[in-house]
Amino acid sequence: MPYFSEESYTKYKLRVESALAEALAKHNICSKKVADEIAGASEKVTAEEVFEEEERIKHDIRALANCIRNKVSEEAKPFVHFLATSYDIVDTANALRYKEFSEKELIPLLNELERELISIAEREKNTLQIGRTHGQHAEPITFGFAVASYVNRVGSRIETITNAKNALCGKMSGAVGAYNASSVIFENAEDFEKTTLDILGIKPALHSTQIVPPEPIADLAHAAVSTFSVLANFSDDMRNLQRSEISEVGELFGKDQVGSSTMPHKRNPITFENIKSIYKAFMPRMTTVYLDQISEHQRDLTNSASQRFLPELFGALYASILRITDAVKKLSVDKEHMNANFNKSKEHVAAEPLYILLAKAGHPDAHEAVRKLTLLAQKEEKGIVELAENDSSLKNYIEKISSKNMLALKSPEKYIGRSAAKTDEVCTFWKNKLKL
Amino acid sequence: MPYFSEESYTKYKLRVESALAEALAKHNICSKKVADEIAGASEKVTAEEVFEEEERIKHDIRALANCIRNKVSEEAKPFVHFLATSYDIVDTANALRYKEFSEKELIPLLNELERELISIAEREKNTLQIGRTHGQHAEPITFGFAVASYVNRVGSRIETITNAKNALCGKMSGAVGAYNASSVIFENAEDFEKTTLDILGIKPALHSTQIVPPEPIADLAHAAVSTFSVLANFSDDMRNLQRSEISEVGELFGKDQVGSSTMPHKRNPITFENIKSIYKAFMPRMTTVYLDQISEHQRDLTNSASQRFLPELFGALYASILRITDAVKKLSVDKEHMNANFNKSKEHVAAEPLYILLAKAGHPDAHEAVRKLTLLAQKEEKGIVELAENDSSLKNYIEKISSKNMLALKSPEKYIGRSAAKTDEVCTFWKNKLKL
Amino acid sequence: MPYFSEESYTKYKLRVESALAEALAKHNICSKKVADEIAGASEKVTAEEVFEEEERIKHDIRALANCIRNKVSEEAKPFVHFLATSYDIVDTANALRYKEFSEKELIPLLNELERELISIAEREKNTLQIGRTHGQHAEPITFGFAVASYVNRVGSRIETITNAKNALCGKMSGAVGAYNASSVIFENAEDFEKTTLDILGIKPALHSTQIVPPEPIADLAHAAVSTFSVLANFSDDMRNLQRSEISEVGELFGKDQVGSSTMPHKRNPITFENIKSIYKAFMPRMTTVYLDQISEHQRDLTNSASQRFLPELFGALYASILRITDAVKKLSVDKEHMNANFNKSKEHVAAEPLYILLAKAGHPDAHEAVRKLTLLAQKEEKGIVELAENDSSLKNYIEKISSKNMLALKSPEKYIGRSAAKTDEVCTFWKNKLKL
Amino acid sequence: MPYFSEESYTKYKLRVESALAEALAKHNICSKKVADEIAGASEKVTAEEVFEEEERIKHDIRALANCIRNKVSEEAKPFVHFLATSYDIVDTANALRYKEFSEKELIPLLNELERELISIAEREKNTLQIGRTHGQHAEPITFGFAVASYVNRVGSRIETITNAKNALCGKMSGAVGAYNASSVIFENAEDFEKTTLDILGIKPALHSTQIVPPEPIADLAHAAVSTFSVLANFSDDMRNLQRSEISEVGELFGKDQVGSSTMPHKRNPITFENIKSIYKAFMPRMTTVYLDQISEHQRDLTNSASQRFLPELFGALYASILRITDAVKKLSVDKEHMNANFNKSKEHVAAEPLYILLAKAGHPDAHEAVRKLTLLAQKEEKGIVELAENDSSLKNYIEKISSKNMLALKSPEKYIGRSAAKTDEVCTFWKNKLKL
Repeated sequence: MPYFSEESYTKYKLRVESALAEALAKHNICSKKVADEIAGASEKVTAEEVFEEEERIKHDIRALANCIRNKVSEEAKPFVHFLATSYDIVDTANALRYKEFSEKELIPLLNELERELISIAEREKNTLQIGRTHGQHAEPITFGFAVASYVNRVGSRIETITNAKNALCGKMSGAVGAYNASSVIFENAEDFEKTTLDILGIKPALHSTQIVPPEPIADLAHAAVSTFSVLANFSDDMRNLQRSEISEVGELFGKDQVGSSTMPHKRNPITFENIKSIYKAFMPRMTTVYLDQISEHQRDLTNSASQRFLPELFGALYASILRITDAVKKLSVDKEHMNANFNKSKEHVAAEPLYILLAKAGHPDAHEAVRKLTLLAQKEEKGIVELAENDSSLKNYIEKISSKNMLALKSPEKYIGRSAAKTDEVCTFWKNKLKL
Repeated sequence: MPYFSEESYTKYKLRVESALAEALAKHNICSKKVADEIAGASEKVTAEEVFEEEERIKHDIRALANCIRNKVSEEAKPFVHFLATSYDIVDTANALRYKEFSEKELIPLLNELERELISIAEREKNTLQIGRTHGQHAEPITFGFAVASYVNRVGSRIETITNAKNALCGKMSGAVGAYNASSVIFENAEDFEKTTLDILGIKPALHSTQIVPPEPIADLAHAAVSTFSVLANFSDDMRNLQRSEISEVGELFGKDQVGSSTMPHKRNPITFENIKSIYKAFMPRMTTVYLDQISEHQRDLTNSASQRFLPELFGALYASILRITDAVKKLSVDKEHMNANFNKSKEHVAAEPLYILLAKAGHPDAHEAVRKLTLLAQKEEKGIVELAENDSSLKNYIEKISSKNMLALKSPEKYIGRSAAKTDEVCTFWKNKLKL
Repeated sequence: MPYFSEESYTKYKLRVESALAEALAKHNICSKKVADEIAGASEKVTAEEVFEEEERIKHDIRALANCIRNKVSEEAKPFVHFLATSYDIVDTANALRYKEFSEKELIPLLNELERELISIAEREKNTLQIGRTHGQHAEPITFGFAVASYVNRVGSRIETITNAKNALCGKMSGAVGAYNASSVIFENAEDFEKTTLDILGIKPALHSTQIVPPEPIADLAHAAVSTFSVLANFSDDMRNLQRSEISEVGELFGKDQVGSSTMPHKRNPITFENIKSIYKAFMPRMTTVYLDQISEHQRDLTNSASQRFLPELFGALYASILRITDAVKKLSVDKEHMNANFNKSKEHVAAEPLYILLAKAGHPDAHEAVRKLTLLAQKEEKGIVELAENDSSLKNYIEKISSKNMLALKSPEKYIGRSAAKTDEVCTFWKNKLKL
Repeated sequence: MPYFSEESYTKYKLRVESALAEALAKHNICSKKVADEIAGASEKVTAEEVFEEEERIKHDIRALANCIRNKVSEEAKPFVHFLATSYDIVDTANALRYKEFSEKELIPLLNELERELISIAEREKNTLQIGRTHGQHAEPITFGFAVASYVNRVGSRIETITNAKNALCGKMSGAVGAYNASSVIFENAEDFEKTTLDILGIKPALHSTQIVPPEPIADLAHAAVSTFSVLANFSDDMRNLQRSEISEVGELFGKDQVGSSTMPHKRNPITFENIKSIYKAFMPRMTTVYLDQISEHQRDLTNSASQRFLPELFGALYASILRITDAVKKLSVDKEHMNANFNKSKEHVAAEPLYILLAKAGHPDAHEAVRKLTLLAQKEEKGIVELAENDSSLKNYIEKISSKNMLALKSPEKYIGRSAAKTDEVCTFWKNKLKL
């Protein structure tokens, strides 16, 4: 991602230095000409130059400042990085790039995934599928309803990411956060901080030390990781539906793609396996984020190197969304197999509505009565509705069930509740909410 | 915590069963009398009874239902747990107890901690302290300003917890979330779900499977863990300020309390050590929460046992806040030592404002000039302001510095920037925001 | 587990105090009578007494010592806890109980699980099963061979646990590990430490501070967690083999056991789901163990409370092994379904040996040739061996394949390699190694 | 690290392909000439070529095989990758590179660190330092003794890494581990596997599926992470000893190195802060390793991508050892400050030996008596030995203390126990054990 390369990170830091100079001019500490000179120089500095200087003096931000200073007049030199401490630049640049990455890349891509999920959910809202709990056949749903679960969960994560990126903040409060240096120059140094950050479109932290409070970044990281969990769950579901014995969905394969080096007939769910694997690699990094919330006194440096790996989490999430979106686009749904799998259990499906109707008809222990019927049904290989109709102890209750409901008991494929309606409701909700 | 005992958990589940019966009556599926009978029975069932029944039939919610059924008339029996699946009860009860625990216990206690922190911050807003970065003396602040950092961070976590608990939701959508069973009875089973949950004061999930979406609980857990990190950071700071060589704060000791079994003179920062230790024990549990976001298809049971440990996280956080609040109340501030520590570095403090003023006076490389002065100052054991005044290469710039500013350079204890004002600002903000 | 209750933990600490007194007598610092008095008193002290005293003086080990002192003569009093620091007692007691728990409970139980796994592996060593990779049918194996994988992995973990528990060590080196106090009394205080620990059957750490080095416990915790992962993997395999569509294994159910509160026909793999869930709850605790390796200088207390939760990891592992052993005993193998599943893929199984034999016959790109045949086979719904025999481009190579091998290609159920032999080899190896 | 670049990884995989061909020749399946041809081609294949082919066919190992095949005669083509499945190559190559990296790079570097630690420990074995527990002054030790703790802990980790790398194993057992393909060719395919792996100097797994058992790699990763914890602890200690108020050790600074961009006088412990930070970034990756122990049935691919990040853990550890070794070489010890810090507490040091001697003299509650004396000493600002001598209630016991011991009580700087002797013992032990 451009946001996270060293080149791009340097550009973000230079943007902050440039905004700082502009703010100095706005507050009449330096001339507009000096600020423009610094802004111009900042545009020309390259990451490579900065690294070379850092190699020499072993301090990244001082190196950055030196590189700008080398490109401006003597008059402008004093105002480069003036009043700032390193982390005024670093933390503001970080907040800015995470914010812009979220706005311009992450959320739009998640919106695209959401649109694809909605499209499948709506398309398959009437496609019969056996619902599964504990890996066992349970009650029927539709495949669209199953996908709607992810429409909802991905939608909620988009909201969480949006809230988190909106809370990111910068600082221009100096080495210990108390505006020591800037208060030498300004009556109210907070005004100056606000001017600088306004230029960048980011708000100042209510309180900072050498660094901004770590919680907004931690919240964004949590939003990312919890989104990743949703993708991992979806991937697990899709992988399992691709099992040889289940075969309800498939990934379309490239023409020349090899499935296995030694078993030419294999068609492996590699995209979904990959997402899960990448998730396992990155989810534990949240532990680092929590540990990085701790920084002694006005800060220690033990959160510096560790934070440099945080972009990898966002990069991995982004790549996984990209990949899963592509896989969702290519997802083939095998209605025939869905039907065949449903048919294996259709005799059992009636157990639940039967027990409901018996209870409603006044049977005092309908659940237990039906449980025994199912055991009998397995033993005698008969349908439980048939068994119920012939069970004298149930006669009084069966008679109270309407003929429409008795018919329904014999059409288990219709026992899908509000699968289709709920799918529509969920899709409509998120299309409106996210303006898709 | 009463919210998390088995007894209390059972009560929450019974409240859901009771609300379910009430909703059935409201929708004219059973009589008001039947609903009242079930509500009455639910109040009488004990956790112990349920365990005994569970021991017999190996299913916790069916056991709960049986216990209620055993206490009602034949007429009422069919309507106990009618239309519900186990997790309609479990997930709704969980959402409810986490919500009520947050509202009635966790947030009020955090508010109390916040009040204590505000009280110290305001009291010590002018108490001079040397700011520390990398464990090294940096620029001066005030102790109140240092505490205001935590006023702000704790305040922000209270908000995060509040948002998270408001997003918790329940369900009454059946075994696979599609309202299969309830749709046998109701035209629009979602209305019925809403009636039930309205009684409990909790909203339904937009989409559920056998379980509610796991993200709201994950967000609440994150809010809890990230709060814990803030407490751990505060504890580390306080522990370090208690080091023998630093001695800026202390924990008041009980009269008979023994510090060490073999070193009678020791006064150990055990409360703050304990908070950090408990944090290390519980923070990693977030990994479990993330893994529990994954449940196959309409759910598998691999998140069941693991979720039963989640209350321990909240219990540990609660106990730690209780303990830290007490420690904050007893915190003694040793202004003399704070002053003595500041005095060790006061000669160096002028380095920053000196460089700022030289730069403002037009020196093209003030930072480097001052860096060399500090090395000289260490070598010759002189003050850097004195050295600067006698340095002919700086003469032109020194002359441009106002006499007021030159005086300030010689009063490093005043170089605290906006420490006091910012402290007030932060305290006022959170007192208003949290209505403290 | 008795090893981990507070009562039992207190007993372990008392055993260390008792050994200390005995060692003092052996080194003629106190009389044998005094040592016996202390040993006798130590046997009488209860956890309850110690808690009451701790409540009063807020120090656990000093409380323990006081409870012993209260039960001995004035002459003996000075020799209670003499020369020891709290963690001489605590760390030695911990090493001792983890060691004895491992030897007397954990390893024997794992051995029992290992025996059960061996028994199934040997029994089913010829039971045909389709091997699965990526959840897809691959090459055939036998169910015994699949189980032998766990025989091997559990066996290796038993070894790892054994090595780890043997490395546990204690200490009697005083408050900072330098034998300060004991060197007042003894010329070579290390001899005295050795005498004390010899009595308990545990070796001293080569170097200790206030505490023993944390690595031996961390190694034991790793051994436990990595064992748990093996159980989790086995559980995942068994759960998946229980899927409705696969149905190759089953858990025998209790007669009155309810599978689902609303779906009476369900048979859920709850034991294996539970193991996986408990694993997710406890595996992350390793993070705490790693963090607890860090203790500042001669120790800080931030590893104290956190370590008190470590027994829960071992308790959870123990309970899970107990449960899984029971499930393995009750595991029913459905050979019919295994066969039926195999039959679905038997046509594809020949792909691999066909490509091997074509390659051996000199075909320069046999893998690609067979890959194309499998696509054709799917399209035309024919067997690939039949297609190969009729493929003129393969004629020259087919002719070089021995008739025995051609026959084998047509009996895919025999294409199980060394499944049975390897199963025997693995079982024999571990029976010998672990003396089962 | 060369072992972990893509180029190098490809070379390892090619070595396995080459060994496979050599083994085929040894078993007379192909000619020596064919094997040599394949070996020659394998040396010429580049990572770049393989990537290009992988780009085309989307399978890494098949791409590798194609690249070799393109460089050999038609006669040799069939024997390239013959009988192998992808993970025969991948897992064997991985075991090999982790083993060789450990032997040739990691262990030698740790040995170098160990030598440096030993050198400091021995040099400073008599350098008085106040021991610290809870961050509070406790009993005196020597700085060499404090370092000896790390000599011991690093030594034990070198052993753990050595054992773990020796347990790594490879495989040549085919797609599901049952030697299906190779059994078509060989009577006992395990012999063939052994021939292949013998060529590479690695042993076969006792049982494998498509992959080798994951436990040996997990054990090596644990060895690495637990080593990292030891470095992190050492770094924390050194950082704290560098605090402005403590100043017992320092890092020598480069001449042009800038400490802070705005505070020219700062000397920050950046190396040790960096080690701790990198530790926080990489320690949590152990969670991934544990999750990767789980792979369904004969394997799924969810451990594939995640394992590709594992080399980063070893790379980070290696870089940290390199950096810490350098820092240890440059560590300056400030004996003056150590002495000054000791002097602040020397009056309290006598408390422990005084209590020991009173107890030995028969005082029934010496600990309590001395605890009260220390409170008095603080209040009256007197020495506790002086107070004890003037305390009439202690008179009888004081008289029993030998004059030599009374003198010792007045020379607290000698109360260092076996600090020096133990330091020698530890250093000698590890020099012998590791043959340093």
